Amino acid sequence: MEALVYRVGMAHPGDVSEVMRLIDDGRVPVEGIVAILGKTEGNGCVNDFTRGYATQALKQALAARLGTHPESLDQRIAFVMSGGTEGGLSPHFLVFARQAGPAAAVDEAPALALGAAVTRAFLPEEIGTPIQVEATAEAVAAAIADARVARPEDVHYVQVKCPLLTRERIAAAAGRGKSCATEDTYHSMALSRGASALGVAVALGEIARSAVAPWSIGEDVALYSRRAATSAGIELMHNAVLVAGVSRAWSGSLTIAHEVMGDAIDLPALHRVLTTLGLPAGRQLTTAESQRLVAVLAKAEPARSGQIRGARHTMLDDSDINATRHARALVGGVLAGTLGVTALFVSGGAEHQGPDGGGPVAIIARRA
Amino acid sequence: MEALVYRVGMAHPGDVSEVMRLIDDGRVPVEGIVAILGKTEGNGCVNDFTRGYATQALKQALAARLGTHPESLDQRIAFVMSGGTEGGLSPHFLVFARQAGPAAAVDEAPALALGAAVTRAFLPEEIGTPIQVEATAEAVAAAIADARVARPEDVHYVQVKCPLLTRERIAAAAGRGKSCATEDTYHSMALSRGASALGVAVALGEIARSAVAPWSIGEDVALYSRRAATSAGIELMHNAVLVAGVSRAWSGSLTIAHEVMGDAIDLPALHRVLTTLGLPAGRQLTTAESQRLVAVLAKAEPARSGQIRGARHTMLDDSDINATRHARALVGGVLAGTLGVTALFVSGGAEHQGPDGGGPVAIIARRA
Amino acid sequence: MEALVYRVGMAHPGDVSEVMRLIDDGRVPVEGIVAILGKTEGNGCVNDFTRGYATQALKQALAARLGTHPESLDQRIAFVMSGGTEGGLSPHFLVFARQAGPAAAVDEAPALALGAAVTRAFLPEEIGTPIQVEATAEAVAAAIADARVARPEDVHYVQVKCPLLTRERIAAAAGRGKSCATEDTYHSMALSRGASALGVAVALGEIARSAVAPWSIGEDVALYSRRAATSAGIELMHNAVLVAGVSRAWSGSLTIAHEVMGDAIDLPALHRVLTTLGLPAGRQLTTAESQRLVAVLAKAEPARSGQIRGARHTMLDDSDINATRHARALVGGVLAGTLGVTALFVSGGAEHQGPDGGGPVAIIARRA
Amino acid sequence: MEALVYRVGMAHPGDVSEVMRLIDDGRVPVEGIVAILGKTEGNGCVNDFTRGYATQALKQALAARLGTHPESLDQRIAFVMSGGTEGGLSPHFLVFARQAGPAAAVDEAPALALGAAVTRAFLPEEIGTPIQVEATAEAVAAAIADARVARPEDVHYVQVKCPLLTRERIAAAAGRGKSCATEDTYHSMALSRGASALGVAVALGEIARSAVAPWSIGEDVALYSRRAATSAGIELMHNAVLVAGVSRAWSGSLTIAHEVMGDAIDLPALHRVLTTLGLPAGRQLTTAESQRLVAVLAKAEPARSGQIRGARHTMLDDSDINATRHARALVGGVLAGTLGVTALFVSGGAEHQGPDGGGPVAIIARRA
Repeated sequence: MEALVYRVGMAHPGDVSEVMRLIDDGRVPVEGIVAILGKTEGNGCVNDFTRGYATQALKQALAARLGTHPESLDQRIAFVMSGGTEGGLSPHFLVFARQAGPAAAVDEAPALALGAAVTRAFLPEEIGTPIQVEATAEAVAAAIADARVARPEDVHYVQVKCPLLTRERIAAAAGRGKSCATEDTYHSMALSRGASALGVAVALGEIARSAVAPWSIGEDVALYSRRAATSAGIELMHNAVLVAGVSRAWSGSLTIAHEVMGDAIDLPALHRVLTTLGLPAGRQLTTAESQRLVAVLAKAEPARSGQIRGARHTMLDDSDINATRHARALVGGVLAGTLGVTALFVSGGAEHQGPDGGGPVAIIARRA
Repeated sequence: MEALVYRVGMAHPGDVSEVMRLIDDGRVPVEGIVAILGKTEGNGCVNDFTRGYATQALKQALAARLGTHPESLDQRIAFVMSGGTEGGLSPHFLVFARQAGPAAAVDEAPALALGAAVTRAFLPEEIGTPIQVEATAEAVAAAIADARVARPEDVHYVQVKCPLLTRERIAAAAGRGKSCATEDTYHSMALSRGASALGVAVALGEIARSAVAPWSIGEDVALYSRRAATSAGIELMHNAVLVAGVSRAWSGSLTIAHEVMGDAIDLPALHRVLTTLGLPAGRQLTTAESQRLVAVLAKAEPARSGQIRGARHTMLDDSDINATRHARALVGGVLAGTLGVTALFVSGGAEHQGPDGGGPVAIIARRA
Repeated sequence: MEALVYRVGMAHPGDVSEVMRLIDDGRVPVEGIVAILGKTEGNGCVNDFTRGYATQALKQALAARLGTHPESLDQRIAFVMSGGTEGGLSPHFLVFARQAGPAAAVDEAPALALGAAVTRAFLPEEIGTPIQVEATAEAVAAAIADARVARPEDVHYVQVKCPLLTRERIAAAAGRGKSCATEDTYHSMALSRGASALGVAVALGEIARSAVAPWSIGEDVALYSRRAATSAGIELMHNAVLVAGVSRAWSGSLTIAHEVMGDAIDLPALHRVLTTLGLPAGRQLTTAESQRLVAVLAKAEPARSGQIRGARHTMLDDSDINATRHARALVGGVLAGTLGVTALFVSGGAEHQGPDGGGPVAIIARRA
Repeated sequence: MEALVYRVGMAHPGDVSEVMRLIDDGRVPVEGIVAILGKTEGNGCVNDFTRGYATQALKQALAARLGTHPESLDQRIAFVMSGGTEGGLSPHFLVFARQAGPAAAVDEAPALALGAAVTRAFLPEEIGTPIQVEATAEAVAAAIADARVARPEDVHYVQVKCPLLTRERIAAAAGRGKSCATEDTYHSMALSRGASALGVAVALGEIARSAVAPWSIGEDVALYSRRAATSAGIELMHNAVLVAGVSRAWSGSLTIAHEVMGDAIDLPALHRVLTTLGLPAGRQLTTAESQRLVAVLAKAEPARSGQIRGARHTMLDDSDINATRHARALVGGVLAGTLGVTALFVSGGAEHQGPDGGGPVAIIARRA
């Protein structure tokens, strides 16, 4: 097997022309696409419709090429749109595909491996609870098997798309005599992201299954995965999982590495990722070097303490700009200074994804 | 002479308690204060009243200690408030003072030198014109002399506070039969900042006096100073100039260096400043190293091209968040990753201050 | 002929289900649709992608029902999305259609009449110039003829969708040695709206053709139409015109009336419209009365003077919320208080559409 | 006694020149000032520093005239700044003062009466609890007595300024082994406003003391006062109460009336207030009539249902503009259309102040 990952730009959230060109040029086999991530220029919060717009445009165009209905695509491709290109972040799509290929040669390093899986559909009252944690852990295990990644430590990034609660869904549960984890629909996004991240942590052996109590979801910041990136959306009721790791069962020129940022300005974490990838840390990458970066994936959030290394930040008290918008801009700047590129997939809402105020950073790169 | 520079935090824009503690503790002689810069948590745009609030609080508290009227303080101290702590920037004041001291010893490197000067009050119709350029150049020369800095190349940072046009001022000019450089009061801030920056460039020999045509102010991005930082405010009609450089006539442990960032992610420029200061470039500073940084001063702006190194940015098309707010967050992240601190004086509106999309960065540091 | 106008809600900008239900229920013949207006919940400014999202969703769904390609629909239906539901405004679509029907009976009042027309495609250098004014005036005349409206005074509302300049379009003109009316793409929206509104004013005889000088477009606030509502969009290069008036050639229960608001709180103008329509002015409409309102169409903008009846407003100095957003919220409140409904098509950007700070208000209502 | 109420404008939040002119002109005796309300142009949310700026400016100027220290003024004058002039609202101050005067003549209607009182300072753990409700009720009773208002039904408006929780205050309580009503400092503002409003309701007999359970504060929207307007601020730990009613013990030309708006577009409630005041309802007031309005005081909030009269509003899902900002703009428009003025004291955060989505509206007017 061989993993293909491409990063292409967009002129606006409905512009999928560069994704289609990848297909039409033969670089990406449309049947092999397993996931498309998009960094779109909305606010990344409740009323960010750039995500739905981009998803609608992608489905419409892909359905035409696949000769199927747009609605059926959710079963075969994970569409994960993350809104917010604050600071200098540049809107882009990341296309993940698989095609036939040999295993790694004996003298080759293991190559990038991709696997996918889904959970069953959740009931509203299961979202943000240990049931979602458990089901996600099982799906992550299935995706690891699908990726033919041998060991948990060879997994470097797990993207999960998870559902949220709406007024209607809460009412449906209530109609069956069930109460949901929250009645605040915005907060349900955090709980679903958090439960999903804890499921990743359990599957990867980062935390013990028994460590997750119902009350710890969204609350106990000491529990976290170093490799999870989770994102909630209204358009599904199940969790969709994409696993990226390395495996000798795969070949090709791509590889992946990750670290966790301890806070929003933890540049040394990025330096370690670069070193692992055989790229220089300690100066800005040259153009040739930065062109080896295929995807840069990071999570950002404001520290709940209200401080970064003892200095007050104003993200949480700003009623004009949402805190996650500040956090994405900041982390984007920290990464861009060293990488020399701004098309970075920095997303917000990092519940149980790295420590408070920090988050995972993973890079998929072409080997030298 | 000896220059004193302190950076202290604030709990909110009206909180000047830490500035007063510097005075009350005897670290700063209140009569020696020449300038107070403040990075306040407003939007940095038209309706940012955190600047006026902080200035009012400073004047009220300083007037009590100096036994004078708050209004009279503009004559002796430059108050330069810059709004906007986007991303992770931390609100803070920078207090600049002078006290008696010996010249540098023979075997000592030249120390930080501070000088100040003001222009005459401008007529509204002179703002944003070559007349303002010329008067600013003269004031900069006077401030350099005041600082006893021997050579233009020993000047590393010139902060200018300049006036803007209001509806009333434009009307007053019209009443005398004069027209102003613009009738757009917001745009007048850009023109005044731009003309002031060009005045600095002329004084420092960065551009020829003859290169400045009336139409080039605010338009010709090829003309710029590498050391100017200018800021417009409603509360004055003259330009107030603060020059920071190095001089053998001064002693003390402080020094200063600068570079110009070629674009918003030009981390190598910061690396060069650090190297000049004897600090390591190429890894994040340790806590001990970052404590040597007394003031970090940078300008930020969105590239007019709509791109950073070929990738689209969305700052200029964002009608929810002003472009300068994005730019400050971004540059703050680029700098904070390497410096390990977030109390950075990153300000927006960099007309003729560095190239399009870039800007000067200067650091005042304690010598090892 | 008979005009049909329906107002339906949307759950989000991509939700066109209620529009489709009108068609599927047989209330609206899909072939008869001449225009769909949408009030979507974006910011109504540059980066408002809710307009494109809604348009894409409408075209996709309508193309399926018409058995044609989505791209071809611009030729037969005017899609006019107006972003911004500030204050209490409620997102909704307005569907305008025509179907066969008798002329008004002898003893009947003239009924609502609808007509449409398009100009040729403009060259970039023609946008915002007298050429666009003239071509729009011709198209309005054609649409009036199409609507079989006998007299200019029987026209009550003219909606125009017009193009804007992009960086690429300006460059294309420059490549032919032509300069455009502005190089500021955002400002080009105002100039295109303004030129289009002046075209309406000329066609309706509200101003003389000779009164429009090139410099007056966007500048001379004394020139305006009392019946134009214009909106700029990136997706077309021609002007699309929808005329709504009354005519004896049409039958049906709908009629229309209009007035111009002299400022943003000119409630008496609304009272006059209601009186014309046979509805009570002077108290809030009852539910039964408000159900007779089919479409309420108004333009809103902040007074350039910075004042409303001598009291300072803060719309123009607010760098957090765009001035047009304030204006829509305000006018929406003024209208909603009397009408008792919030699904009002209040749109911003009223250059040459009513006097400075005011704008037209038109109501389509079912006769008692 | 005679009550004096003046409304004056401000050029910016630090501009108190018109308030001082009232004093310097002899219209307001500085010793008689009991309260100053300010509608300032901030965002009205957490980081709205226009309130602190205006308060600082007022205290500085008043202290100079009273020959006292600014800090001591909180004991004698209630400063209640409400941020947010969305839509067309015009920034202004309302000065409330008392001076000696006869009682009402036998044939005169009762005149405006003003009374003030304060509670003791609260402990952090008391804020947002029944203890605050009870203490507020006692203070309201004291203020009614101070105002010499004979009957509860003669009270028309009760303004309360109340404290909020900060991280430090919560920690202090925890240090004594006490937990606070919430650990969310922003939410503490809502709880404090809500408890204060319930205290007003109890004092006025609008609800029974026994109806207030701890859990109902901030939750049970069926419990509310029709005359309370409460506002939380960081600068005090007690509640300050201003009561406005009518009494035969007072003379002068001012009177007051109130109603409660059932939702944000309940214009009929305003009409009833006008009728009570002898002003015409049913058309916009003339300039002469609107000049009789001295103060218009209203509360605004978004309906939790997400709807206004069955139509979806977008206030609660808007992550760019805070919901209270939308609500103020909307209610401001509803009132301004009929009143013909925009200097309206519309404030947000109406917990237990009127029904869900609605709020009290009171007008102080000069008798004809």
